[in-house]
Amino acid sequence: MKIDGKPYRSIWREASGEVRIIDQRWLPHELRIVPLRDRAEFAAAIRDMWVRGAPLIGATAAYGVAVQMQGDASDASLRETWEVLHETRPTAINLKWALDEMTRHLAPLPVTERPAAAWARAAEIADEDVEINRRIGEHGLAIIREIAARKGGGRVNILTHCNAGWPATVDWGTATSPIYHAVEAGIDVHVFVDETRPRNQGAQLTAWELNSHGVSHDLIVDNAGGHLMQHGEVDMVIVGTDRTTANGDVCNKIGTYLKALAAKANGVPFYVALPSPTIDWTVKDGVKEIPIEERAGSEVTHVQGRDAAGRVICVQISPDGTPARNPAFDVTPAHLVTGLITERGICTASSEGLAAMFPDRVRG
Amino acid sequence: MKIDGKPYRSIWREASGEVRIIDQRWLPHELRIVPLRDRAEFAAAIRDMWVRGAPLIGATAAYGVAVQMQGDASDASLRETWEVLHETRPTAINLKWALDEMTRHLAPLPVTERPAAAWARAAEIADEDVEINRRIGEHGLAIIREIAARKGGGRVNILTHCNAGWPATVDWGTATSPIYHAVEAGIDVHVFVDETRPRNQGAQLTAWELNSHGVSHDLIVDNAGGHLMQHGEVDMVIVGTDRTTANGDVCNKIGTYLKALAAKANGVPFYVALPSPTIDWTVKDGVKEIPIEERAGSEVTHVQGRDAAGRVICVQISPDGTPARNPAFDVTPAHLVTGLITERGICTASSEGLAAMFPDRVRG
Repeated sequence: MKIDGKPYRSIWREASGEVRIIDQRWLPHELRIVPLRDRAEFAAAIRDMWVRGAPLIGATAAYGVAVQMQGDASDASLRETWEVLHETRPTAINLKWALDEMTRHLAPLPVTERPAAAWARAAEIADEDVEINRRIGEHGLAIIREIAARKGGGRVNILTHCNAGWPATVDWGTATSPIYHAVEAGIDVHVFVDETRPRNQGAQLTAWELNSHGVSHDLIVDNAGGHLMQHGEVDMVIVGTDRTTANGDVCNKIGTYLKALAAKANGVPFYVALPSPTIDWTVKDGVKEIPIEERAGSEVTHVQGRDAAGRVICVQISPDGTPARNPAFDVTPAHLVTGLITERGICTASSEGLAAMFPDRVRG
Repeated sequence: MKIDGKPYRSIWREASGEVRIIDQRWLPHELRIVPLRDRAEFAAAIRDMWVRGAPLIGATAAYGVAVQMQGDASDASLRETWEVLHETRPTAINLKWALDEMTRHLAPLPVTERPAAAWARAAEIADEDVEINRRIGEHGLAIIREIAARKGGGRVNILTHCNAGWPATVDWGTATSPIYHAVEAGIDVHVFVDETRPRNQGAQLTAWELNSHGVSHDLIVDNAGGHLMQHGEVDMVIVGTDRTTANGDVCNKIGTYLKALAAKANGVPFYVALPSPTIDWTVKDGVKEIPIEERAGSEVTHVQGRDAAGRVICVQISPDGTPARNPAFDVTPAHLVTGLITERGICTASSEGLAAMFPDRVRG
């Protein structure tokens, strides 16, 4: 998407052959573009969250393999690279998938053919992510178009939570893709951006990318969405997901569930943008079966921001020694979800809906 | 309540005759106790929020009249004091009530009797607030006791939003009063404290007062309460209110409504601590009739806290120029409220419930 009128992906290869990323640790306060030149830099970029978001992590790992193959395309090098990159964020599903895929593709080839093949497959993996998100955008656009028509061309107000935007993917984002598509289609769209405490991904990333691309938006505190829905100020909610069960229960950033309850209570459609790799076909009851990560209490007691001198620092908002609980995700039961927007189309959040959309993937 | 083992009110008169307050602008990072020595200081304390919370503002104004009467008890002085103090926060209902009450009480008296009468009436107004809150605490204690009994003496987990604690009143607080009473009764109580963005009154005041009094608690982000309720970690919710309608609709700090929805969805009782002066008998439908204050967007884009050097500063969390919406309150419809805890007892959140509890006050 665009930053100051210029199109960007979150990772790309220059004509010179160099791979570059946006170092997201400095957003929204600074746009730093850095090259990743060797395996150690790719490992650091993933581990230390210069890049984040499951799809982008997968694409970054694929490019990391390609860079390494260019220097040393031996079997030992390929094996070592899998291990070095995999251990950077071992629980990330897309990371393992991308490394397995590169290995599966390159291992049977003669060493001399591996570098070119690695670059080609890494580019494909990035392009495939873009294509999945583009399709989610097209299917979501149909919903927005319908609301705009019902409002006689009036402004469509969309609420989103956390960042399921293009910096979490290679391009388009998931929840933001329908929004960008609507903007391109000339629909008058306005986005309410939940700041998304504790880490403020909404304030730091979603507000930044919408501002950079020129999409009308307002930042709101996580407390405000219910009131806005109660007063008819929200036409639909679109969020992303970290894991969706075979039954359609949606695990996403903490606070998503509260917005789903408010949407249901006020007749506001609540959609989830869902790339199919995010479906966990092995899990049914999300509330009972998905373990929720509890993160450090310091994320609650402290807030990061920019001070008057322009430095990015942390401030403490509570008394010294205040204990805190910090569950990072919650589960929105399927019955609160109006629909799942996948790359194949929109289905109901149910085992029937998902099985009908993905008959080739569903399990017993 | 107690700070480091020593009992405090939020305003009091020393044996020397001096009125003192806790200057709440520095909480939780510093406990500053300051005297208010003349009318100008009382006016500044109310206007600049050294004190806040409707009941405490009323008591402060009453003491301000007394201090002024001691120097000049003339009719002109009494009239001027009403005006000077009233204009500090003209929309605060308790402020006007306290000033009217002092004037009504003092005006008929000879000038020489006014100083002593003013001190006596101010002390009564403060004591009456303490008594209302104490009774709310006793009635709320019965609910907590019942939950503790049902759990076989197990820990009772209570979620609260914003600060309806003792620093908003003269003592006890409203929503916190049942909690303090339960602690005194030896019940094992734990409080989940919503940080309450944008101004973080939960993190700054509620966490501070519970910590100071030695009540077990965890600070959580406003997003977390739904997840905790879904997993049975919350036994009841108690919140305060800025205005409750004759029908039982509850206007309170933004985000209260989202917690009420989650409580309803998960069978968690949701109580509102309601001193009767907070009932607005002239309003019925809270969502339609109560105008909601929209405050500055900078409260959303910036967060106040203490930096590493110990200075209290603001940091910016979003990109430069990010637009924000900032509704300060929301309305929880009566059907989501399990009960209203008033100084006379507990009633349903309905016109019937309120009319039966306050037959002497209900209007046509």
